[in-house]
Amino acid sequence: MSTTQANKIEIIKAPTTKINEVDFENLNFGSVFTDHLFECDFKNGEWQNPTIKPYAPFMMDPSSRVFHYGQAIFEGMKAYKDDNNDIWLFRPDENIKRFNSSAVRMAMPEVPEQLFTEGLNQLLKLDEAWIKKGLGNTLYIRPFMIATGFGVVANPSDEYKFMIILSPAKAYYSGEVKVLIAEHFSRAANGGIGAAKTAGNYAGQFYPTSLANKEGFQQVIWTDDATHTKLEEAGTMNVFFRINDTLVTAPTSERILDGVTRKSLIDMAKREGIAIEERSVLVSELIEGIKDGSLKEIFGAGTAAVVSPIKGFAYKEEYFELPKIEDSIALQLKEKLTNMQHKLTEDPFGWTVKI
Amino acid sequence: MSTTQANKIEIIKAPTTKINEVDFENLNFGSVFTDHLFECDFKNGEWQNPTIKPYAPFMMDPSSRVFHYGQAIFEGMKAYKDDNNDIWLFRPDENIKRFNSSAVRMAMPEVPEQLFTEGLNQLLKLDEAWIKKGLGNTLYIRPFMIATGFGVVANPSDEYKFMIILSPAKAYYSGEVKVLIAEHFSRAANGGIGAAKTAGNYAGQFYPTSLANKEGFQQVIWTDDATHTKLEEAGTMNVFFRINDTLVTAPTSERILDGVTRKSLIDMAKREGIAIEERSVLVSELIEGIKDGSLKEIFGAGTAAVVSPIKGFAYKEEYFELPKIEDSIALQLKEKLTNMQHKLTEDPFGWTVKI
Repeated sequence: MSTTQANKIEIIKAPTTKINEVDFENLNFGSVFTDHLFECDFKNGEWQNPTIKPYAPFMMDPSSRVFHYGQAIFEGMKAYKDDNNDIWLFRPDENIKRFNSSAVRMAMPEVPEQLFTEGLNQLLKLDEAWIKKGLGNTLYIRPFMIATGFGVVANPSDEYKFMIILSPAKAYYSGEVKVLIAEHFSRAANGGIGAAKTAGNYAGQFYPTSLANKEGFQQVIWTDDATHTKLEEAGTMNVFFRINDTLVTAPTSERILDGVTRKSLIDMAKREGIAIEERSVLVSELIEGIKDGSLKEIFGAGTAAVVSPIKGFAYKEEYFELPKIEDSIALQLKEKLTNMQHKLTEDPFGWTVKI
Repeated sequence: MSTTQANKIEIIKAPTTKINEVDFENLNFGSVFTDHLFECDFKNGEWQNPTIKPYAPFMMDPSSRVFHYGQAIFEGMKAYKDDNNDIWLFRPDENIKRFNSSAVRMAMPEVPEQLFTEGLNQLLKLDEAWIKKGLGNTLYIRPFMIATGFGVVANPSDEYKFMIILSPAKAYYSGEVKVLIAEHFSRAANGGIGAAKTAGNYAGQFYPTSLANKEGFQQVIWTDDATHTKLEEAGTMNVFFRINDTLVTAPTSERILDGVTRKSLIDMAKREGIAIEERSVLVSELIEGIKDGSLKEIFGAGTAAVVSPIKGFAYKEEYFELPKIEDSIALQLKEKLTNMQHKLTEDPFGWTVKI
């Protein structure tokens, strides 16, 4: 780590800011970036030259491994600003840990926690004006790593680039979410890369999701590829089901991303005295639950979407709409979580971290 | 197609050539590129500005979709030069067709066949000095497409770059190949992207393959993810098994790449009167075949590797070595195929195409 000491991050400031061009009330998710980014390159077996510099395009060789063999991982995190202008992160250690698990699975080098943390914190401090106060305003953080080594031979790269870019964000989904339950296409294989936050997992979902979009569904809930009877996750969210007053969600596995929002909701539910089960959920349970009235809610959980209530689902050409309810556990948990993240209420878990 | 007419390809020639710096007798596969590349960008719903220009790095935005969501596909092809200095391709229509099938599955735009063909042919003519005569000398062709649109939101890109780069090549694998049969990790899911030649399929194999490498195996033969009992493909090759005098190979499916070399070998075997079966092959058949002597050969088939005989395989900690044989069907088919590709013998199939 000789060249990656925290105090060695070179900072090259942008000569001007783009912030005045941005309408913070009308943001399309992930489309506007702050003035700076953090960058660090892996060469000759070590991370070197950590730098914060103006957000700008960079040069890539046509034979870069990421273009041909897809070594690319990322994380999604958020920063929040409280009324004292302090900046907070939510469980950043969990994202760093998962990033490095993804790195191992994709045969990429791990990023030392200190390097990740210092790069992120210094970047956030430099671009802190982009973090707006108030519930619903966040700065979305996108750490990612790509294979930059040359050569079209199907082996792991020997060079990588780690970057963090920042994007001011409002809500990810707006409007009602209807989902299609997969009965042919799949997201992940047993023994595959479904638990890694790697680029290819997302590209693989675009075509089936576009087919679902055409039928009026915003997302697909994936099922196990062997039988298509077990519910797994939506591509950008884990999924919870409320059966009577019990929340149920699929256990994490090689096929399912270990979501930070997912695990936070589980712990919050436990603390609230809400019954929660981590177990396989069958599609047939949902259909029976709609018919006998026991299925009360379905919602997605993820950093970008936070908690996203689902209005209804289709399976094998039939559409099932969820009942309207007064006492939504989804909305209750969402409010508690976002209040905690924005430091509007106490954080009994110690999840919020001031930078 | 108004802007992508064949005669509209702009050609910007490199001021000098790198060819004299290249040792054509000692080439590492996929590491040296010719003087030029072909490039065409998809913007505003159409392919535009097809250009042949000097091979060089290009600018990418940090939020380019390919880095985050992995929309990236490629093909592998080869060009050959005969004794008359004519340049030949092998079944290029099959590669173009598969490239566009991959594009559909990855929610990317198809590349019109005429654009692909004209870009490739004009590029090959310009860099024809890089194609060396003689058996074993080829020019490896790497067409690929990446998502260049901006924004970290998990939707298909609206902009893409299609490129063709060229790399002079000798053999892909050298030395003996031993394989490990997968019993935990998997390459593809039912309903997944295994049949698409997309970047993420390769990255997912690197870690399991690196574990196999450490145990002395060069490649992994993947099995079905549900039971790990059916043999599918090696990551860069389809796989054939010779049981007595019958060749057997897994049928193509959503999980298995529809290899051009694979289908060519099948047709060649039929013409030669060699019995060939496309059917599921069980791991247990191999082990029984080793024990009773009916398993004579295993070989991989792919554009890069052509035909790659396999010396032995391991499954569940046990290693099985294939018998040494005199009348290798693998080597016989390899010789016939490479002779045909290099125009040293007749091509009764009409597969070779002069540009």
